Amino acid sequence: MAKLVEYKDMAPRAKAVVDTIARGRSIKPDEINNVWKALAAHPDVMERFAEELKFAMGPGKLDPLTKELIYLAVSIANGCDYCIASHGAMAAKKGLTVEMHEEFLAVVLAAQKGNKIAQAYRVPVDKAFEEK
Amino acid sequence: MAKLVEYKDMAPRAKAVVDTIARGRSIKPDEINNVWKALAAHPDVMERFAEELKFAMGPGKLDPLTKELIYLAVSIANGCDYCIASHGAMAAKKGLTVEMHEEFLAVVLAAQKGNKIAQAYRVPVDKAFEEK
Amino acid sequence: MAKLVEYKDMAPRAKAVVDTIARGRSIKPDEINNVWKALAAHPDVMERFAEELKFAMGPGKLDPLTKELIYLAVSIANGCDYCIASHGAMAAKKGLTVEMHEEFLAVVLAAQKGNKIAQAYRVPVDKAFEEK
Amino acid sequence: MAKLVEYKDMAPRAKAVVDTIARGRSIKPDEINNVWKALAAHPDVMERFAEELKFAMGPGKLDPLTKELIYLAVSIANGCDYCIASHGAMAAKKGLTVEMHEEFLAVVLAAQKGNKIAQAYRVPVDKAFEEK
Amino acid sequence: MAKLVEYKDMAPRAKAVVDTIARGRSIKPDEINNVWKALAAHPDVMERFAEELKFAMGPGKLDPLTKELIYLAVSIANGCDYCIASHGAMAAKKGLTVEMHEEFLAVVLAAQKGNKIAQAYRVPVDKAFEEK
Amino acid sequence: MAKLVEYKDMAPRAKAVVDTIARGRSIKPDEINNVWKALAAHPDVMERFAEELKFAMGPGKLDPLTKELIYLAVSIANGCDYCIASHGAMAAKKGLTVEMHEEFLAVVLAAQKGNKIAQAYRVPVDKAFEEK
Repeated sequence: MAKLVEYKDMAPRAKAVVDTIARGRSIKPDEINNVWKALAAHPDVMERFAEELKFAMGPGKLDPLTKELIYLAVSIANGCDYCIASHGAMAAKKGLTVEMHEEFLAVVLAAQKGNKIAQAYRVPVDKAFEEK
Repeated sequence: MAKLVEYKDMAPRAKAVVDTIARGRSIKPDEINNVWKALAAHPDVMERFAEELKFAMGPGKLDPLTKELIYLAVSIANGCDYCIASHGAMAAKKGLTVEMHEEFLAVVLAAQKGNKIAQAYRVPVDKAFEEK
Repeated sequence: MAKLVEYKDMAPRAKAVVDTIARGRSIKPDEINNVWKALAAHPDVMERFAEELKFAMGPGKLDPLTKELIYLAVSIANGCDYCIASHGAMAAKKGLTVEMHEEFLAVVLAAQKGNKIAQAYRVPVDKAFEEK
Repeated sequence: MAKLVEYKDMAPRAKAVVDTIARGRSIKPDEINNVWKALAAHPDVMERFAEELKFAMGPGKLDPLTKELIYLAVSIANGCDYCIASHGAMAAKKGLTVEMHEEFLAVVLAAQKGNKIAQAYRVPVDKAFEEK
Repeated sequence: MAKLVEYKDMAPRAKAVVDTIARGRSIKPDEINNVWKALAAHPDVMERFAEELKFAMGPGKLDPLTKELIYLAVSIANGCDYCIASHGAMAAKKGLTVEMHEEFLAVVLAAQKGNKIAQAYRVPVDKAFEEK
Repeated sequence: MAKLVEYKDMAPRAKAVVDTIARGRSIKPDEINNVWKALAAHPDVMERFAEELKFAMGPGKLDPLTKELIYLAVSIANGCDYCIASHGAMAAKKGLTVEMHEEFLAVVLAAQKGNKIAQAYRVPVDKAFEEK
C-alpha cells in the first residue's frame, strides 16, 4: 500500500495543495483523503492532478452532482475500488439519494450491456452518426 | 461485421421491438439504428436489451441528458466505438452543446487519471468511506 | 494496419509455423488467417504464440467447442474485434449454432453485469469462498 | 465495503429473491452469498439481476459447467475479484477438477495473448470472416 | 469519425497549439497528426493535453525512446488503435528497431499473462512488498 | 485467496521452477514471491509462465529497467494490484528512483489521456501511419 503522509509531516508544496482543497471542501487540512496523503511524496503528479480536478469538477454548465456521477461511472467501468468508494461518498454529499443511485447504476449496467452487444456482434456505425 | 436485417425483412418478434423503440423516439421503424438491425436475428438478446434500456433510460429522478452522459462515460471508459458514436449523437439530440461536451470530457479524463493514480500508488480506502 | 506477408513470401521459420497450423486445420498454407500473415515478420512472437495456442486449444479434458467459447468470452470482454471475428468463425466451424450463440452471449452479458455490480457495491468476498 | 443485510433483516422483496435462489441451489436462505446481502438494499437492481442470471445460467443447449467457465473467463478478463472467487467456487461445485481448471486457464491466457497480438500489430479482419 | 479541421481553418488558439508542436517535431504545421485536427474544435481539452504531453514526454531522467515504449505499452493494454498506430510510428522515429519491437512486445505479453495469473489465482501481495 | 505452498512443501516440478528463479535473482528458494507459491499447485501454468518471463525479461536490446517499466505500465493500465506491488519493488531494485517513478507515472497518465481522447473523439488513423 502507499505510504500515507499526514498533513503535519508534508513538505510545503504538498501542504499548499491540501490547503486549497480543504478550503474548497470546507474541511480541515488533516481531514484530507488518503489519495492526497499518498500523493504528498510525489509533488509533480500531486499538483497537476489537483489542478486538473479543480478545472474539471469546478462550476460550469454541468451541475456538480452530474459531474460526480460521470466520474463514478468511469470508475465503475474501470473497476477502481478507491475511486468508487471516495466518489460514491462525494456523490452522496452532493445530494445523491439511494433511489437516484439505483437509477444511476441501472444506466451504468445498461451501458455495459450495450457496449458488449455492439462489440460481440461487431455492429457497424450508422452512416447517420458519421455524417456530422 | 454483423449481418444487418432491414425492418421489412425482420421476423415479427424483432418488428415488435423496433415498433416500440421507433414510437418512443418519434422515428419511422426503418430509420432504426444498426444495433437493432444486427440484433434482429437474435430475438432473446434483443428483447431483453430493449427492455433493460427502456427501464434504465426512461423517466425517473435523473434527467434524460444526465443519463446519456453516464452511458457515454461508460462507453468511453470501455472504448466501445459504436456506443460512443450512437450515444454521442443521442446526447446531442437531448441538448448537449459543444461547450457541455468539452466539460463532460474534462470530467471523464480527470476520472481516468484519478483511477490510475489510485491504482498505481495503491491508495488504501479511507476509514471514513468504509464506515457507512 | 499490419503489413501482411503472403505464404509464398514468408521466410522459412514463418513457413514452418504456417505449415503446422495448416495441417492441423486441414487447409492450404495460403489460406492461413491474417494474424499469421502479420506475425510472419516477427518470428519469435509468432513461434511462441503458435506453440501456446496449440498447447491451450489442443485435445484435453475440455472439449474443443468449450475452449472456443472461453476464448471468445475473453475476446468480447477485452473488446478485441479481430479475435471476435476469427474465433466466432472458428466456433461456428466447431458446431456453435445460432441458438447456442445466443445462449453463450446471455452468459457473457450476465457475467459483465455481475462483475460491475460486485465492483460498484464493493461486495466483500464471502468467508466460505476464502476458506478453501 | 457494501453494507451486508442478513436474510432475517431483509425487506419482503429482497427475501423473495433470496428464497428463489436458495431453493434453486438447495441451500438455506441465510447461507446466501454476500452479493445478495449487498443487493438487498437495492431491490430494483437485485430483482433484475436475479432474473437475468436465472435466464442465462438456467438449463439450455450449453451445459452448466460450460456456462460457469464462460462466466469465470469474463470475470478474469475484467479483473473482478469477487466474481472470480464466487464463480470459481461454483465451477468447482459443478465438477471443475484441478486439471480442468489448469486447462481452462491456459485457454484464458492464450486468448489474452491473442487479443493483445491482434491489437498491437493492428491485424485487419480476414475477408473470409466478413463475408458471412 | 471526428471532424478534422485543417491547420489553415483552425482558430487562433488551436493554431498556437499546433505551431508549438510542429516546431518541437521539426514538421510543418499542416503535417500535424489527426488527433490535433480533431481537437482543434475543442480548445480547452486541446491546450491541456498538449501541455500534459509536453511535460510528460519532454527531456528528463528517462530517455525519449523509453517514454515512447511506456506510452505504447499503455495503449496496447487499453486497446487504443489510434495510439498504437501513432506512437508506434513515433517510437520507430526515435530509434525502435524491428528486433527491439519484438522484444518490447514479448514484455507486454508477459505482463498481460502475469496480470491475469495474479488475478485468476487471487494471489495476495507479499508482506515484503507492503513494508516499504 | 490462493492457497500458498511453501518451498519445502512443493512437488519436485514446482521446486525446480523456484530453484531456477531463485538462482537468477540471488535469493534463497524460500524467499520466493507469493505468485510462485500460488502457482506451485498448477505446474503446467507455472512452468510456462516462468519460461515466458525468462525469455521476455532476460538480457537483450532493451535494458532491464526499461523492461520493468513496460511491465509496470501494462499492470497499471490493467489495474493489477499484485503486479503493481511486485514489479514496483523489482523496478526499485533495478535502479528506479523516486524522481524517475514520478516521470514514469506522468507518461502513463498522459498515455491514458491520449487513449481516451482518441477514442472519445473517434479520431481516424492518419494515412501516413497506415502507409508503411
